[in-house]
Amino acid sequence: MRACLGELQDALCAAFGAADGARGFEKDAWQRTGDGAGLAGEGITAVLEDGALFERGGVALSDVRGQKLPPAATARNPHLAGRSYRALGVSVVMHPRSPQIPTSHMNVRFFSAGDVWWFGGGFDLTPYLPYEEDVVLWHRAAAAACAPFHAELYAELRRGCDEYFFLRHRGEARGVGGIFFDDLNAGTPRFGMPWERCFEFMRAVGTQFLGAYGQIAAARRALPFGERERRYQLYRRGRYVEFNLVFDRGTLFGLQSGGRSDAILMSMPPLARWAYRSPDAELDARLLPFLTHGRGRDWLASGAGQP
Amino acid sequence: MRACLGELQDALCAAFGAADGARGFEKDAWQRTGDGAGLAGEGITAVLEDGALFERGGVALSDVRGQKLPPAATARNPHLAGRSYRALGVSVVMHPRSPQIPTSHMNVRFFSAGDVWWFGGGFDLTPYLPYEEDVVLWHRAAAAACAPFHAELYAELRRGCDEYFFLRHRGEARGVGGIFFDDLNAGTPRFGMPWERCFEFMRAVGTQFLGAYGQIAAARRALPFGERERRYQLYRRGRYVEFNLVFDRGTLFGLQSGGRSDAILMSMPPLARWAYRSPDAELDARLLPFLTHGRGRDWLASGAGQP
Repeated sequence: MRACLGELQDALCAAFGAADGARGFEKDAWQRTGDGAGLAGEGITAVLEDGALFERGGVALSDVRGQKLPPAATARNPHLAGRSYRALGVSVVMHPRSPQIPTSHMNVRFFSAGDVWWFGGGFDLTPYLPYEEDVVLWHRAAAAACAPFHAELYAELRRGCDEYFFLRHRGEARGVGGIFFDDLNAGTPRFGMPWERCFEFMRAVGTQFLGAYGQIAAARRALPFGERERRYQLYRRGRYVEFNLVFDRGTLFGLQSGGRSDAILMSMPPLARWAYRSPDAELDARLLPFLTHGRGRDWLASGAGQP
Repeated sequence: MRACLGELQDALCAAFGAADGARGFEKDAWQRTGDGAGLAGEGITAVLEDGALFERGGVALSDVRGQKLPPAATARNPHLAGRSYRALGVSVVMHPRSPQIPTSHMNVRFFSAGDVWWFGGGFDLTPYLPYEEDVVLWHRAAAAACAPFHAELYAELRRGCDEYFFLRHRGEARGVGGIFFDDLNAGTPRFGMPWERCFEFMRAVGTQFLGAYGQIAAARRALPFGERERRYQLYRRGRYVEFNLVFDRGTLFGLQSGGRSDAILMSMPPLARWAYRSPDAELDARLLPFLTHGRGRDWLASGAGQP
């Protein structure tokens, strides 16, 4: 498991570093011995900042053990909170410089607490200047990751993603969705799988993310943009910050468990703007219809082609 | 009460708008009828954006009634959560363009829930390039607001401010403090005051804030700064965002009670930066010793002069 997650981190860093061209990832290996109540463990935080393609991006591997499972780790199984646990995972957020390229996020994680284990993860996409064919490609990759495991898994996890990545105070989805799963193990109703199958699914999530996001970034990187689109991107990145600090369970888990703040907040954009009113009603009119929380637009059925 | 808060808002907008010179505040009056579970009320959100002195600032007046007091409104009196309530207040955050001038925050608020009422509020200062004499002036203003009401009120509320404006995940205070009070009424241990005195104190807080911040901004506005200081300011503003979205009870109260997001998030900086490591160890070495959470540096005893 640990070796496989290490390979996934390396593959992501190699692919996105090569795509950037100007900068590679700087890897910061860390280790922490537990101080009784605290967290013990190790990891490698890989960060790319101020690149040509990516303004900021991070791929973090962590393997931690804690005395008390924080509430944010297990919203659906509150009875496990307080147990000692082990958590392994890889988490990725890429913030491109160009507003033509969406921000993307992927996470895979494995928890065990005594005799209980579960997997979680998924990927989601946050465009600024959306292209329907990118969204279709993204959801096809999500469906491809799920298909070998259960005919209805994609539909279920896509719903989970729409529900999770939602900014209640804005009444807005964070992006165009993808898949999100939590508490997946042998006992999960309808979709339960033995450990080995869960593990394979986790790998498929990583592989599909890498391919799909790489394709979208390559397709959009040469498109021009101006001050107007840049301004809008910075404003929309404010929503990304709001989601991560107010709602994101991974971020709250990290902050609650006393993790390393700069590594946890690797998901923050390099630069974000706030304004009392949206700076661009036209670009809003283009983007907002894509943020289809709860409206269940079927991206797989769309007639749009590849980007 | 309402009239007095309206006057305070007008005075703040007039003073800071005049200080800016280039832009005045745009006032957005709003009204909301309750929809059963929701919030009813009215207010005036005054925002100054893209000014000469202030890059973004807001002075919000609100007068709302709700069916169920959200938990964030009353951390110290959880038994009141769920009651119907009325809340009136003025809230100010000013983000100057120059890193030579601190960001400032002031809030005064009055709650009633059935037969119970209480006041809350305070002001605090967040410098980027700190000047000791500014911090001394700020704390003298805080002490002056408190002195007529109780000999030990300043010390108590200063401690309250240090405790409240603290980013646990960073192990850092948000700024150099000031005063913070909550749940102040006739029954408050040691510092309890009848309604009229609480009201006078609230006015003194507004008046002292206006004077002290105006003086600091005037003293620092002509100082030069470069790309380096600007970059550091944007990075430190990231901490401001983190505090407001992760810890601030006023922000959480607003988001929980279904308020207007753009008005609640008026406190967000116009532009903020995140990086894996601080961009400037030297500027950190200058700033961080001022962030004296729990270390109780006595600013009133300092020999520093006026700015």
